[in-house]
Amino acid sequence: MKKKKKKVNAGILIIGNEILSGRTQDKNVSFISNWLNSNCGISVKEVRIIPDNEKIIIRNIFEFSKKFNYVFTTGGIGPTHDDITAKSIAKAFKIKYGIHKEAYLILENYYGKSKFNDGRKKMAKMPMSSKLIYNPSSAAPGFITKNVFSLPGVLSILNSMIENCKPYLVKGIKIHSKNINFFTVESNISKNLEKIQKKYIKFIEIGSYPFFRLGRVGVSVVCRSSSKKKLVDVIKELRKLAQIKKIKILKI
Amino acid sequence: MKKKKKKVNAGILIIGNEILSGRTQDKNVSFISNWLNSNCGISVKEVRIIPDNEKIIIRNIFEFSKKFNYVFTTGGIGPTHDDITAKSIAKAFKIKYGIHKEAYLILENYYGKSKFNDGRKKMAKMPMSSKLIYNPSSAAPGFITKNVFSLPGVLSILNSMIENCKPYLVKGIKIHSKNINFFTVESNISKNLEKIQKKYIKFIEIGSYPFFRLGRVGVSVVCRSSSKKKLVDVIKELRKLAQIKKIKILKI
Repeated sequence: MKKKKKKVNAGILIIGNEILSGRTQDKNVSFISNWLNSNCGISVKEVRIIPDNEKIIIRNIFEFSKKFNYVFTTGGIGPTHDDITAKSIAKAFKIKYGIHKEAYLILENYYGKSKFNDGRKKMAKMPMSSKLIYNPSSAAPGFITKNVFSLPGVLSILNSMIENCKPYLVKGIKIHSKNINFFTVESNISKNLEKIQKKYIKFIEIGSYPFFRLGRVGVSVVCRSSSKKKLVDVIKELRKLAQIKKIKILKI
Repeated sequence: MKKKKKKVNAGILIIGNEILSGRTQDKNVSFISNWLNSNCGISVKEVRIIPDNEKIIIRNIFEFSKKFNYVFTTGGIGPTHDDITAKSIAKAFKIKYGIHKEAYLILENYYGKSKFNDGRKKMAKMPMSSKLIYNPSSAAPGFITKNVFSLPGVLSILNSMIENCKPYLVKGIKIHSKNINFFTVESNISKNLEKIQKKYIKFIEIGSYPFFRLGRVGVSVVCRSSSKKKLVDVIKELRKLAQIKKIKILKI
């Protein structure tokens, strides 16, 4: 008999002053969230963007690791003084922080002994009992500490590593999504959407998002559910609504 | 005598399932954070992205409004069933939720009596004692409840409204920023940066961010401080470091 999949959730901690100050536009949240849902059936429930501050990192790691099945952190695992994620996670879990032998060998092999300087050696320091997340693009590994997955802040590198998290993740129910784009304003369909949402409250989550396209306003109605069948049903109802209200649908 | 400015901080709550699911890429954080710092000298200390869920919104509003001088929320103030920010804020502060007379008149005037339907009327419902944040682009106002500023999720509309928050904000010390871009790798300068950071620890926050430009790797060293003078000093030291280490600097 096939084992029934459960709901599995995650939280994301984006660690970095440069994101909080507005200097850098975060792109990791949408990437990780999409990847987790489509590859592992894991839903992201909360994201926090926090500074490179040890106390704050410790407090949030502690809270998130209790609250969610998995925690993903990005940022703060490089060679410079402001990279304090690894040390803070070790402190949060009271695990010894030091040179991780396997990470050290990977980095020494990558740079060669003569170019393996102190900054680079720092990237081998982490909670010593962590499992590694291999990095095919720039060698310095991420690491898994209890249920916390630590990845770099640079999206192109993170992207090359994320598949290596998969073996360590228990898969959950995948959330499917279908959307329909009405050429109308939200207030014209808000009552109807509310009725349909109430009817399907157990199965489907309906979101409504205005859009602007070639000078015309519209509403993208996004339906999310673990049941493909229910999604087909609700989309049928939404098409019927468009017919009754004589609303054009954007075909893409 | 000129009154000495104090540090003023803020937290941002991004409310919306579409951001958490990864469907929509948030752009509001960097916009609001940059605007607050450069126009008001207010630093963003934490951001949370949370779902359209009443209990969760209430808990976070409660926590953030105590923790920070100001709170900015985006999203969930439109006409549809999933727009529950206004009601949740009213509940968080135990303020009556209902038709805000001034908001009602603005919307009725904008749409005309015949087109002012129930969905649109919903946008006049909010904590009844809130002050309005006028919306020159699509009329529906944001609102200020205690120290919480509620704005829409669509950046172009938010952008048109944010100047109207200014009169209600106490200004703080502006944080200035200077950066210098080295054509080298982080590990080559990490020890030096650490020394310089320690020397200026009271005045300056130094961040180090790798970049890739036309096939070459580099490090952007970002210095942030309330003192322009100290910034000039630290940039001088960084230029000297480049000279000593024979590192080229990117001129832009």
